Parts: sequence; structure tokens; C-alpha cells
Amino acid sequence: MAKGFQSLPGFRDFRPEDCAVRNYLFRTFREVARRYGFLEYETPLLEPTELYLKKSGGELSSQLFRFEDQGGRDITLRPEVTASLGRLAATVQRNYQKPIRWFEIGQCFRYEKPQKGRTREFYQFNVDLLGESNSGADAELIALSIELMRELGFLSGDYVIRLSDRSYWQAFGEKKGLSEEQTAELLQIVDKLERNKPEVTEENLSSLGLTADEVNTAIEQPEALGENLDNILANLEARGMRDEVEVDLSIVRGLAYYTGVVFEVFDARKSLRAVAGGGRYDTLISSLSDGSVDLPAAGFAIGDVVIRHLIEETPHAAAKMQEALEADKACDVFIVLADESKQLDALGLASKLRSAGIAVTYPLAPTKVGKQFKQAEQSGAQLARVGGNEFPELAMKTLSSRTEETITADADIADSILKRLNTTS
Amino acid sequence: MAKGFQSLPGFRDFRPEDCAVRNYLFRTFREVARRYGFLEYETPLLEPTELYLKKSGGELSSQLFRFEDQGGRDITLRPEVTASLGRLAATVQRNYQKPIRWFEIGQCFRYEKPQKGRTREFYQFNVDLLGESNSGADAELIALSIELMRELGFLSGDYVIRLSDRSYWQAFGEKKGLSEEQTAELLQIVDKLERNKPEVTEENLSSLGLTADEVNTAIEQPEALGENLDNILANLEARGMRDEVEVDLSIVRGLAYYTGVVFEVFDARKSLRAVAGGGRYDTLISSLSDGSVDLPAAGFAIGDVVIRHLIEETPHAAAKMQEALEADKACDVFIVLADESKQLDALGLASKLRSAGIAVTYPLAPTKVGKQFKQAEQSGAQLARVGGNEFPELAMKTLSSRTEETITADADIADSILKRLNTTS
Repeated sequence: MAKGFQSLPGFRDFRPEDCAVRNYLFRTFREVARRYGFLEYETPLLEPTELYLKKSGGELSSQLFRFEDQGGRDITLRPEVTASLGRLAATVQRNYQKPIRWFEIGQCFRYEKPQKGRTREFYQFNVDLLGESNSGADAELIALSIELMRELGFLSGDYVIRLSDRSYWQAFGEKKGLSEEQTAELLQIVDKLERNKPEVTEENLSSLGLTADEVNTAIEQPEALGENLDNILANLEARGMRDEVEVDLSIVRGLAYYTGVVFEVFDARKSLRAVAGGGRYDTLISSLSDGSVDLPAAGFAIGDVVIRHLIEETPHAAAKMQEALEADKACDVFIVLADESKQLDALGLASKLRSAGIAVTYPLAPTKVGKQFKQAEQSGAQLARVGGNEFPELAMKTLSSRTEETITADADIADSILKRLNTTS
Repeated sequence: MAKGFQSLPGFRDFRPEDCAVRNYLFRTFREVARRYGFLEYETPLLEPTELYLKKSGGELSSQLFRFEDQGGRDITLRPEVTASLGRLAATVQRNYQKPIRWFEIGQCFRYEKPQKGRTREFYQFNVDLLGESNSGADAELIALSIELMRELGFLSGDYVIRLSDRSYWQAFGEKKGLSEEQTAELLQIVDKLERNKPEVTEENLSSLGLTADEVNTAIEQPEALGENLDNILANLEARGMRDEVEVDLSIVRGLAYYTGVVFEVFDARKSLRAVAGGGRYDTLISSLSDGSVDLPAAGFAIGDVVIRHLIEETPHAAAKMQEALEADKACDVFIVLADESKQLDALGLASKLRSAGIAVTYPLAPTKVGKQFKQAEQSGAQLARVGGNEFPELAMKTLSSRTEETITADADIADSILKRLNTTS
């Protein structure tokens, strides 16, 4: 370990091999969003703190990187992106045709205890559909999340979409004569069903005049799912995506701002983690704009940390990623300089090849030829020898197959090498 | 203007049309770095404050977004990336073949007065070469900066590389009998030549026993440039890049950590701004690792704000960008649903096309056919009509040319449409 500075706990350095994985995720996010007609946007990493206090509430507000700037403003590093999206959409939505299909990829910050699968910064892929209250929008988002999992190399049994609808619990509450506040309380209890002990749940429910039996029956033997869930299931069936979805009414998502359909992408194997999640938040934009803009909305988010672990633990997804990373070579051609006096010729060649889009490396300083060969071999590139016996011709060598041929260093050399790269890679 | 929350002064929202420009810059940064054999890395946005106090000093340390986290740590949002790179390189460099070619694209934060061309956050493209002290490394970086300007659509006369070498002033100082501290002072005076009044410069120089005449002569009629600059000029000449470079010994770059060759990419037209800059910093990594790692290094950085302005002000560069942005359409195919009862057929079609990589939009909720046509037209996509007279055949329409043909909705429909898109776009 070198002496000197360390990075902060919970903050990651991305060495090139880590950054390549990050970029593979980002590329896949962007590609799937593109297929679904979504456009990328970005909002600031810093926002006025009240934006988060107003919106998120609860657990998040105790995990903020919050401080005062030099101008005395109370500001916060964003813990999530939906609040900023709501702020931005309220300001500019009138310029865009509805429904608005937008996505974002960027970092978020939460002061949590660092551990496996949990860092203090993480990247999030946010996908949102604004201006459409029909459940066709919810189905579209769920379909996008399934397409993303497929594109990342996951198979049907690897994950499951757990689908639910807060409206179901609203109707349940009304039937049981609960007030709005009591129904909100009920949602909190349902959200913690898996985490709390049965006796705690029973006690919490009894204060609402309910029993655990009633609630469990409502989850396990629902009388009717309601129009939204029925439509969504038929919609996904038509796309060939029904098998990936499971109605699970115990899912309500913690955050207070969800208003209707909610869902999670759930790891279906050993660790049973939520990989992604989201839902409908029809009142958030109105609330962030003091009621001046009323725009129904739904969205979901997926973080980079859990999905990376899940890929690495799932052999077929890991293999697909590995294949993509290997196609992303650092270098196509390594120029070996066999005769130092030909250095300027090598530079001219490098320049010509690079302008044609070929990735080229060469020794920046005088280097023994043996060492150059070794470096070329490590780089995984093809080797072009300048200044050998064949000069001014060029010897091209594929190190993996140990084959060599001579190429004429004429005006078309970039084309010849491009063809060579395409046939041997 | 909607009521409600505003973003912080100096922080930008990237609506899709802004984000597309940002992504065009990022794509070009990545493409040029790839051709030069550089690999992408990333470091945290937050670092311990002392990392910046130790390295940068001067002006930067008064512009920090600096605060205490919940664990009582004195932390700072990075104002630049080289300090983090030095920290990371000191820790992991032994695992990588030298020279290390690394680049980074990420946000930085400085508390400055917001104005045109200056924001409180900006993206920076950082390119660094570690482990090579030969001036061939400096030339490689300068060449990369020129290739970047070319790739962004700039022509020779639009910009100039101002090239200099701090060693020249070291030699000048030694000849004049200056101490190390006095030479450092001289560099500060030279750095401010353009900004300070002549009488201030004269006075500052006289305290070192020098005159403005002596210094101006050293800049304008140098006796010899030294081996580094001579080699770099010959190197760039061999690449066909000599015309873009101008030796200008008045360039020394403000930051204290530069040790040798320095350069700036300079707007050669009306506004005369520095667009990018960098140089050699051979002692920084040693200093950040308490002397445990000694790695010569050189690098440069370019921000997104000034280069975007310069592109927009330069017609041929703006046209090249516009062309790239237009190729990046939001949507390939808009499915118009002529008969609501065929909604599930439309979903199946959307799903099939998307899996084949085609970007598809369709109405998420029941929408009048006339309105769907209007939406399709605005999206710029080709139109596929489902449920019209020709159903189960599919009517494909190119809105720009008003031509229509019928396509068979069979197993190969995605292929047929892909072929259609390639021939008509």
C-alpha cells in the first residue's frame, strides 16, 4: 500500500477495468432506453435542501450530504433524481409533446454505513414517463425494465417483477372504514411485513382495528386486482413478458409519494434483493410546483451496485458482459520501432491510422526492440514493425497466431490495415 | 415561469436538447482518446479537503465547495481531477504497464461568480500520460488535443496551440542568478503579463533585479528553445500538425505543480480564450504519496462550457455537430393504432421491433387517429399503421416523402423494417 492520501469510505475509484464495467452498464441502459423512444436529460448534482425535505421525507432525509455553501445556501448532494426531474418538468414541460419519455444516468449520494452492495455514492438509471395517467404507461415502464434485464443477459428465472397497486390498499382501507391517515399507516405496516416480527405487525394492525389474518388474506387471496393490474398483465402478455411478472400486493414501496401502481425487479435466486423499483407518482409535480403544474407521472430507477453484483453472480449474464468487454480492446495496432532513426516515419504512420479511426500505440521514448515486442504482446494489439529489413514496407504481425505479412506503406495503408483488423479480430 | 423550486445559481439543467450536445462532446472525447490508446477511469466527486489544499493552492482553494460530513470529515467536491488521479495512480500504478495512458470525463465544482462561459459545475475531459519523462509524451498529448479539435470540426486557423516550457524560465533564472523562490515569483509575473498593467509588471520585476525589456526579449527573441521544445516541434511536424502550433514562452500556466512543458489550446479568433490546457507535472505523484511513488507525468484538461460556446460560434464546427445530432433520432418507427381493438397486436409488434434494436413509440392510451398522425409527424419517425384496411398487413409510411407501402406482418417483419429504415433515412 502506498503512503499518502486515501479516498473517503464508501466512495469508489474506477480503475480502467472497473470503468469498463460501468460503461457496459451505461451503454446497455442507453440502448434499451433508445429502443423505447426515451431521451436523455440530466439535472444538477447539488440542489437546495428543501427540495428533498419536501419530497422524500423519512429515512432519506437522515442520509443527506447536506451543507451550507459560500453564499449561505442550505444545499444537498442529491440522494435521488426524481425530485430534480419534477422541478425541471414543472418548469419546461409545456415545450414538449406529451407523454414525455425521459431518462437519466448519474450519481447519487447517501450517507449510509458502507458494506457489500452499499456505497455512499452510486449511479442510478432513472426512466420516467410524464403526462400519461393510463396504465399503458406503467406497463411500458415495466416492459422496459424486463427488456433491460434481458439485454444484460438475464433469463426468465433469474429475476421476477413484483407488481402491486397502492389503489388496492386504498380500496381495502375504504372498505374497512379507515381514514386517509390510517390508510397511509396501513401502507407503512404492509411495507415492513417482511422485516418486522409477526407480533409487532399484529400490534400495529390492531391499533387500526385490523388483524394480520385479514391483511394476509388480502395479499394472498385478493378478490379482484382492479382494472389497472388487469390491464397491465394483458399488456405484458401481448409482449411475451407475462412470465416474468408476479402480482405481489405486499409490495407498496416505502416512499410517501407513490400514488398507484408500484413494482420491483427482484432477484429471484439466493439473495432476494430488489434490483430496481418504481411506480406512479401523480401528485409529485403538482406539489413541487405549488400546484401550478399538474402532470401525472410514473418511473423507475436501477442502481449500478446491486446489478453489477447480480451480473457477476449469474454465469450467463457475466459471460455476456465479458464478451462485450473483450470486444472493447484498448489498442488495435502497436507500432514497433525497429530502427530509432525511423521515428518520424512511425509518427506519420500513427497519425494516418488514427485519423482513420484505428487505435494506435507506439513507444514514446527510445525503447529496446525486445521490450517493445513484450509491450505489444501485453496490449493485445496487432503489431506493425517500422524500420525493419522490409522498410519502407511494413511488417504486420498477429501476435496470437504468430503470422506475419508485409504491407505496402502507400496512401491506402489505413484501408489495408482496417481490412486486416476486421478479418483477424 | 412555473412557481415552486428553482435550481441553484451556476448549476445547469440539461434538457434533452442540451444533453444531446453534452453527449456529442463526450462521444468525441472518447473516440479520440480511444484512437490514441487511452483507457477511461473515474475517481470520486468527493475527496478529503487536504488533497486539494496540498496540491493546488492559490486561487482554487478559495473556490471550494467544502464542508463537514456526518462523520466529522473535512471533505470537498472536486474542483479538478488531477489530484485524485495522482492519489489513485500512487496506489495502483504498479499493476499497470508504463507508460499509463488514462483519461476521464466527469464533473468538477468551483464556487465562482456565474457568468457567460463560467458555471459552478462543469464537465472536464482529462487526459494523462504517467510514467514517461521523454518529451515524446508531451508531443503525444498535444497531438491528441489537435486531433480532438479537428474531430470537433475546427480548421487550422480557428485555434492555435500555444506551447512553452517552464524549464526555459528555470534556465533564464539561473543565468540571472535568481534563487528557486525568485524564479517561482518570476513565473507568477510572466503568468500575469497579459492581465497586469505594464507599470505593475515593471515594478514586480524590479524587485527581482529584472526589467520588462529583458523579459520581453526572452519571450520574443529566445536564443534557443531547448531540446524539449525542438523535439516536440519535429515530432508534430512528422504528424502533419506543425501548423497548429506556436511557441509562446509567455505561457507558464498558473498552477504551482507544473514542472516543464506547458501548453494551451487557444481560440484564435475574436474572443481569444484558452479552451484547454495542461503540461508536465513530474513531482506531483511523489508529493501526494509522501515520496513513496515517483512517477513522471503530463496531462491536459478541457472543459465542456467554453468548447460548446466555441463550436456554436464557429459555423463549420456547429454544422458538423448539428449533423451528428440529427443522426441521433429519438424514434425510428411510430406505431399508429387505427383500430383500438388491435391494441395488443400493436404491442406485440412494438416488442418484436424493439428486440431487433429498432426505436419504437406508440400511443400508450386510446388516442384519436388524427392526433396520432400529428404525434408521429412531430417525432420524425416513420409511421407503421396497425388495424387499418390492410390489416393484418401493415402500412408503412414515410412522412417526409408521403410514400406508403404495405408490409407483410410475418416472422421477418423486423428485418423488412430495418432494411426500409436503412434505405430511406
